[in-house]
Amino acid sequence: MKLYNFFRSSASYRVRIALNLKGVSYQYIPIHLRRSGGEHHTPAYRAMNPQELVPTLEDGGRFFTQSLAIIEYLEERYPEPPLLPRDPADRATVRSMALGVACEIHPLQNTRVVSYLRDVLHHGDEDVNAWIRHWVTLGLAALEQQVLAVPQRGRFCFGTTPSLADIFLVPQLYNARRFGCDLSVCPTLVQIDQACCALPAFADAAPEKQPDAE
Amino acid sequence: MKLYNFFRSSASYRVRIALNLKGVSYQYIPIHLRRSGGEHHTPAYRAMNPQELVPTLEDGGRFFTQSLAIIEYLEERYPEPPLLPRDPADRATVRSMALGVACEIHPLQNTRVVSYLRDVLHHGDEDVNAWIRHWVTLGLAALEQQVLAVPQRGRFCFGTTPSLADIFLVPQLYNARRFGCDLSVCPTLVQIDQACCALPAFADAAPEKQPDAE
Repeated sequence: MKLYNFFRSSASYRVRIALNLKGVSYQYIPIHLRRSGGEHHTPAYRAMNPQELVPTLEDGGRFFTQSLAIIEYLEERYPEPPLLPRDPADRATVRSMALGVACEIHPLQNTRVVSYLRDVLHHGDEDVNAWIRHWVTLGLAALEQQVLAVPQRGRFCFGTTPSLADIFLVPQLYNARRFGCDLSVCPTLVQIDQACCALPAFADAAPEKQPDAE
Repeated sequence: MKLYNFFRSSASYRVRIALNLKGVSYQYIPIHLRRSGGEHHTPAYRAMNPQELVPTLEDGGRFFTQSLAIIEYLEERYPEPPLLPRDPADRATVRSMALGVACEIHPLQNTRVVSYLRDVLHHGDEDVNAWIRHWVTLGLAALEQQVLAVPQRGRFCFGTTPSLADIFLVPQLYNARRFGCDLSVCPTLVQIDQACCALPAFADAAPEKQPDAE
């Protein structure tokens, strides 16, 4: 199994955590998003990933894209330990938390969107940072409420073991700190993040631990 | 089962298609996104959906949010007809197509993001329309490539029956047309859209057919 990814990419970070939790070993292939105009824009990479985004997982001669699709694939191929609860209603709750990050926060703060704000719409640091903080704070505050609404809360987003929701939360909080976002809106998420980062599967997936870290 | 939704919301439209494909009847509860400052911002609605977004599905006393999580829930509760292939690698391919819409296109053109561009960053129609067209065209062109790469192509995004990917495609093409986007980048997707819209499950879910349509 090969993971084409970038140390700082949030979507790459999610897949690294999932691979570690599943105990699946993989070959790390760095794709630098800024070097040589972006290695994700080369024809060779585009052939694997038409969206020209990281990560891409190669397994059994197939190329898989979109972090959530990759993690659901890992969950189906390697059911233990489970990253989703058993009950369909609980599974929906956990997936909704992950999607709250994947659809409502991350797309608005990722590199290409920020570049468009700067390069095409000519916004400076103040506007760009306010934009990022607006969407990150709004999304994290909503996720905090979703997590608090879980009956029989444990140390993680849903219950007593890490799930898909935690896999999406931790890289998003990493980004939120990078952008100086106000985390006082989500004290429970900050506690969950600490619980996660104490686990080797999460700690070993951190950007600064990767071979291409700068 | 109750679906709190808005006729023109793309995420609502996806869930309506899925419910129709599964043959599940539901009560339609309109949540108007502009009336009275947005009915999705009321405390009563927020208690069901902390993200203050549509749709929300109520089933068995539980409230489900995020269209993809809702549709995966329906898939698990009502397996027939399947909206995902059986093979894990194929499932990942279909989910990746849906996520290409859910994470890379729709979040950048939804109402609250467009409002921020207008009201906070003071962009006029020209900038806003260029922004929308940029992300929609980029995302649809990538999805076209993903679909063309499917071995043994059928009439739909993946094979000969409608899947999760088609459920995400059709509302996105509806939006693309509303915004005057150039669809010449995705002739295959346009053909698939026609095949889908010929089916009652898709046709009956269209915005103009809903009780709250304007």
